[in-house]
Amino acid sequence: MHVLITGAAGMIGRKLTARLVKDGGAAGKAIDKLTLTDIVAPEKPAGFSGRTDLVTADLADEGIAQKLIAGRPELIFHLAGVVSGEAETNLEKGYRSNLDGMRNLLEAIRTAGDSYHPKLVFTSSIAVFGAPFPPAGIPDDFHLTPLTSYGTQKAMCELQLADFSRRNILDGVGIRLPTICVRPGKPNKAASGFFSGIIREPLAGMEAILPVADTVRHTHASPRSAVGFLIHAAELSREKLGPRINLNMPGVCVTVAEQIEALKRIAGPKVAGRIKREPDELIMRIVAGWSERFDVKRSVELGFRAESLFDDIIRVHIEDELGGKIVN
Amino acid sequence: MHVLITGAAGMIGRKLTARLVKDGGAAGKAIDKLTLTDIVAPEKPAGFSGRTDLVTADLADEGIAQKLIAGRPELIFHLAGVVSGEAETNLEKGYRSNLDGMRNLLEAIRTAGDSYHPKLVFTSSIAVFGAPFPPAGIPDDFHLTPLTSYGTQKAMCELQLADFSRRNILDGVGIRLPTICVRPGKPNKAASGFFSGIIREPLAGMEAILPVADTVRHTHASPRSAVGFLIHAAELSREKLGPRINLNMPGVCVTVAEQIEALKRIAGPKVAGRIKREPDELIMRIVAGWSERFDVKRSVELGFRAESLFDDIIRVHIEDELGGKIVN
Repeated sequence: MHVLITGAAGMIGRKLTARLVKDGGAAGKAIDKLTLTDIVAPEKPAGFSGRTDLVTADLADEGIAQKLIAGRPELIFHLAGVVSGEAETNLEKGYRSNLDGMRNLLEAIRTAGDSYHPKLVFTSSIAVFGAPFPPAGIPDDFHLTPLTSYGTQKAMCELQLADFSRRNILDGVGIRLPTICVRPGKPNKAASGFFSGIIREPLAGMEAILPVADTVRHTHASPRSAVGFLIHAAELSREKLGPRINLNMPGVCVTVAEQIEALKRIAGPKVAGRIKREPDELIMRIVAGWSERFDVKRSVELGFRAESLFDDIIRVHIEDELGGKIVN
Repeated sequence: MHVLITGAAGMIGRKLTARLVKDGGAAGKAIDKLTLTDIVAPEKPAGFSGRTDLVTADLADEGIAQKLIAGRPELIFHLAGVVSGEAETNLEKGYRSNLDGMRNLLEAIRTAGDSYHPKLVFTSSIAVFGAPFPPAGIPDDFHLTPLTSYGTQKAMCELQLADFSRRNILDGVGIRLPTICVRPGKPNKAASGFFSGIIREPLAGMEAILPVADTVRHTHASPRSAVGFLIHAAELSREKLGPRINLNMPGVCVTVAEQIEALKRIAGPKVAGRIKREPDELIMRIVAGWSERFDVKRSVELGFRAESLFDDIIRVHIEDELGGKIVN
């Protein structure tokens, strides 16, 4: 099977690639070719015996999607796009990257000919929802009223993906990722960055800024779980999925205080003491509009799994990113 | 005030133009310029003392939206687009006309400069919703799961309009029209055509086919009401509208049997006797997936008004289209 990953140089893209190479296959089929694309050069994955095509290109540019589709990948993971903070500060870039990129990809698939009918797994986001929210949790069928341009673009993509799936142009599935935590590496432009920062920096011996009250409640899943969702989504048959293809993914719903408690349990009070409270009005206002909790009955029934405890999310980070070592 | 109407050569576009000319203004301001655009040549409205620009062009073509926006219309009615049947049979044309047309218009507004900030009234549709529906009526905040490409495109447009309004690029309002009845003109093959046909043809002395059971329930508003919705939407202040700018419009919710009873009351049994029952399995199946009833509490509170009785819808047709005359 030929697998295409867009946004392959990103954090999730790299982890997904490594997992696919390690598994040797996906959706019950061996992988003999990987096409990895991103706007920055993707790395050639180590230990893959099949063919790898690395394509440095912007999916929003004319003709790029056609080129990527020319090799008829049977499975596509569409992860490319700009993050929420950037989509909000640069409206043009956000619509171009997040919406036009998806439209180009869908159009290239539709017009490919010779009964081409791939599976497309799309990373959407819980940002498709906007406050006010039901306290019991946001169900899959909660109305789409995004409060950011990023959420708007993801919701528009979900709609077109559902339409193209209904029309049997492809088999689409949209997975609405909760906040990915602990995000490795340097802080990015996402307003949600502190949710990871308050765990990542202290574990690495550095100070972290907490810009919101520790009563803020949020839902998280580890990068390992996010990759697991993608792999599982690729396995789901159209029959099992049914007509409503965009799904809220599971996660661990905790307050910031509970995140910090978990950090204390796992790494001790000295590490947790590296969190510095510096309230930021802008971030507080943005975060106040975010969803806290999800009703994920359907995705759990469909077999999607996240961590059960925030402690596990921290452990995954220590195992996968820190080689098991904490800076005390 | 300068008013731009896209889709001005269509049925609603023509009626809206005539009403604006008759009123002499909208949203409390006198109209001194009308720009009418459509892919077929719009007619110059009779009796308008201001300047009229007629533009035969496709909004989906490069540069057209910029040209239309160059004159800085303060009020825009965006009615242009292809109808549901055509969007379903010609996917490319539907996305181009309904989605790209809107995107071009929004982009032209965004990039116009000099603090340009128009009011934009967009005709969306109840097709943004898909079955199964709540029996008590579909509220504004029912989830968006369109079952047609047309509904998908309208939902995508609603989302971007809401985002651009939230970002204060313009003042947008999306009005979700119910089925317009009695639609003037010739019978067509649209699955919903019979709702108008069973009134229009008998009143004109012709036979009409009823392809569904007379227990079928549906919501209707007259062309006159549709124009009234547009005019009222243009008057609504941003403050009154709030952040959720896409609204279900009111209408008369009746069964086909009640439509026929109303026709009998107004035109007599001989006219109503011209309805011929010819069940059509395909049309019955399509209609079964349509929404029956809406929760329009919010739009009614905001001052939108439709007819109260189906009798009134028939009377509007006789007054506006038949010069008060029925063929007995």
